Amino acid sequence: MKLDKFSGANVRISPTAKIGKNVRIGDNTVIYDNVEIGDNTIICNDCVVGEPLNAYYSDMEHYENPKTVIGANSLIRSHAIIYADNIFGEGLHIGHRATIRENSRFGVHCSIGTLCDIQGHSEFGDYVRMHSNVHIGHFSKIGNYCWIYPYTVFTNDPTPPSEICVGPTVGDYSIVATHCLLLPGVKIGKHCLIGACTMVSKDVEDYKVVVGSPGKPVKDIRDVKDRETGEAHYPWPYRFDRGMPWAGGTYEEWLKNNK
Amino acid sequence: MKLDKFSGANVRISPTAKIGKNVRIGDNTVIYDNVEIGDNTIICNDCVVGEPLNAYYSDMEHYENPKTVIGANSLIRSHAIIYADNIFGEGLHIGHRATIRENSRFGVHCSIGTLCDIQGHSEFGDYVRMHSNVHIGHFSKIGNYCWIYPYTVFTNDPTPPSEICVGPTVGDYSIVATHCLLLPGVKIGKHCLIGACTMVSKDVEDYKVVVGSPGKPVKDIRDVKDRETGEAHYPWPYRFDRGMPWAGGTYEEWLKNNK
Amino acid sequence: MKLDKFSGANVRISPTAKIGKNVRIGDNTVIYDNVEIGDNTIICNDCVVGEPLNAYYSDMEHYENPKTVIGANSLIRSHAIIYADNIFGEGLHIGHRATIRENSRFGVHCSIGTLCDIQGHSEFGDYVRMHSNVHIGHFSKIGNYCWIYPYTVFTNDPTPPSEICVGPTVGDYSIVATHCLLLPGVKIGKHCLIGACTMVSKDVEDYKVVVGSPGKPVKDIRDVKDRETGEAHYPWPYRFDRGMPWAGGTYEEWLKNNK
Repeated sequence: MKLDKFSGANVRISPTAKIGKNVRIGDNTVIYDNVEIGDNTIICNDCVVGEPLNAYYSDMEHYENPKTVIGANSLIRSHAIIYADNIFGEGLHIGHRATIRENSRFGVHCSIGTLCDIQGHSEFGDYVRMHSNVHIGHFSKIGNYCWIYPYTVFTNDPTPPSEICVGPTVGDYSIVATHCLLLPGVKIGKHCLIGACTMVSKDVEDYKVVVGSPGKPVKDIRDVKDRETGEAHYPWPYRFDRGMPWAGGTYEEWLKNNK
Repeated sequence: MKLDKFSGANVRISPTAKIGKNVRIGDNTVIYDNVEIGDNTIICNDCVVGEPLNAYYSDMEHYENPKTVIGANSLIRSHAIIYADNIFGEGLHIGHRATIRENSRFGVHCSIGTLCDIQGHSEFGDYVRMHSNVHIGHFSKIGNYCWIYPYTVFTNDPTPPSEICVGPTVGDYSIVATHCLLLPGVKIGKHCLIGACTMVSKDVEDYKVVVGSPGKPVKDIRDVKDRETGEAHYPWPYRFDRGMPWAGGTYEEWLKNNK
Repeated sequence: MKLDKFSGANVRISPTAKIGKNVRIGDNTVIYDNVEIGDNTIICNDCVVGEPLNAYYSDMEHYENPKTVIGANSLIRSHAIIYADNIFGEGLHIGHRATIRENSRFGVHCSIGTLCDIQGHSEFGDYVRMHSNVHIGHFSKIGNYCWIYPYTVFTNDPTPPSEICVGPTVGDYSIVATHCLLLPGVKIGKHCLIGACTMVSKDVEDYKVVVGSPGKPVKDIRDVKDRETGEAHYPWPYRFDRGMPWAGGTYEEWLKNNK
């Protein structure tokens, strides 16, 4: 490239930030106080990392920014805003214009798509994949190897407006398709499939496929066929490995070795 | 903070802008012609205030930017774009990356969440609270103390594409939950609750709860119970006061004093 | 204007970019390698044009950016991100914060609204109008004179997650209203109207109106009346010409001359 993203123009980095080896930071990006960035991570242009919390605006002089950790080997695309007080494991991938408020914990190899709006105070397991424009309200819990598709919203106030705040829970390996709504406090089990445009208003048992508004269980996920081969497609880890820790081998073997 | 948001870097302010006392303007923010900013307001980094209208592009030399007013004691988070010809009352709160097109009027203490897309030519009362990613089409009217939740859309063209443009109306104290759609010209009364994922296709009487697609009235809002106490939760002002003018006292008293 | 958008501040343009006559480029905008911009085009502030593809991050030194073409007489509003390897015809209009991934082809006079998220690898005809916040997945095909309204999503994976990727197809003159979902591989004919909040799960014949979730054909579009006059409103080109090539004359005449 004759023109690159990493010319150093307008980059501002706090003296209290700890930047790993072989990290690249794009033009116009700002890294605030108390941010730690792991080795080999790329933070593209126009990002904000360690955005100060509300308390900053009441007393800028005495405010102390809580710690923010971006794991090693991560890629953060341009124009992301990441608040302070977030901890991300290694292999993180963040899309353009994601906004991530404070006080969440993310496992390793999570992916947060373009325009996602993570409201904070939530827990994410390992290998959580959120596609574009997912909205996660406060106090959500998402397990490992979950997939959340665009325009899906996790809510938390059963009688708005109120002071009650109970987020949804999603179990390991579950999939929530596009344009879904999870009502406050619903618990979705493991290996579930929530079909597109579903409003989940009740708890969902493991292995259920739920569709409709309000959502109803319609079948066992193990009865869903692949469109092309007609074979069972789920549980998906037996048939999909791109980016997963069992890639190259089989899910069975990996499961045996990781019990 | 060792690194602050208000270093003055790349800030550009028109000589015709009027900036109040104790205003802070974040790095990279641009304030165009004929903008007035009230006292004690904080405009964070990378914002645009007074964005010129379409006519600017046809004749940049002679274009005159209409007036824009941001009330006192406001907080505008980073990356907001606010067009010229908007008037906002005091105590405004705008989230990251909100886009607010021209020619709307907002009362006092309004809140416009992250990624909201206000298309302009609309009226907003006092204490209107829009959560993230709300889309308000042209010619909408929202009363006082209304709550609008994420991914809700106000539409205005009954036979798209056409030259007809009739926006929805929402009455005082009403709540429109997440993922709703208001069809062109619908009128929602006062103290209504539009449940999540509802498509409102007909006018709604005061105090009704409407759910479904198309939405149907299912009960009186005064019969909705608090999930934890089992008591009636609505009308909500009797049970919720955070950020409201009756906070600290009671809604009854405040109502008596403000008749 | 006393303060303008085109002061040249922080503009960076690759030496391999080809910029037409009378082009204006706003402050903070970056034009990467191998971008061609047609005459009289306006690219506003804080845009990225020719954003490098993923391969750039693996080998920045040897990476070569594919060609990107922005047609003449276009207007790109601020904060748009346009990846390399996109070809746009003339008269393009892009809204604020649109994100357009690589490898799509767009006809002339397309419009891509605020916050649209075009995932790439897709085909768009002439005069395609996408309103705000439309999400187009990989391998979508949209014909000529189509209208797509806010929060509508084109999906492509029938059994997520999988390696199958089949996008939807939309025929000429068809309209997809707000908050719709097109399931993977569905084919919508010409002159169709997909009503608001519809989930399209089956192919749609020409001239059908489809509503519901899942969507069902409910009438012929030629039976839909204008709300004000009571006359048939569709096919819309006979009654709407703003921005269309038949503006000033009639659609019949234009059709005769363009057969």
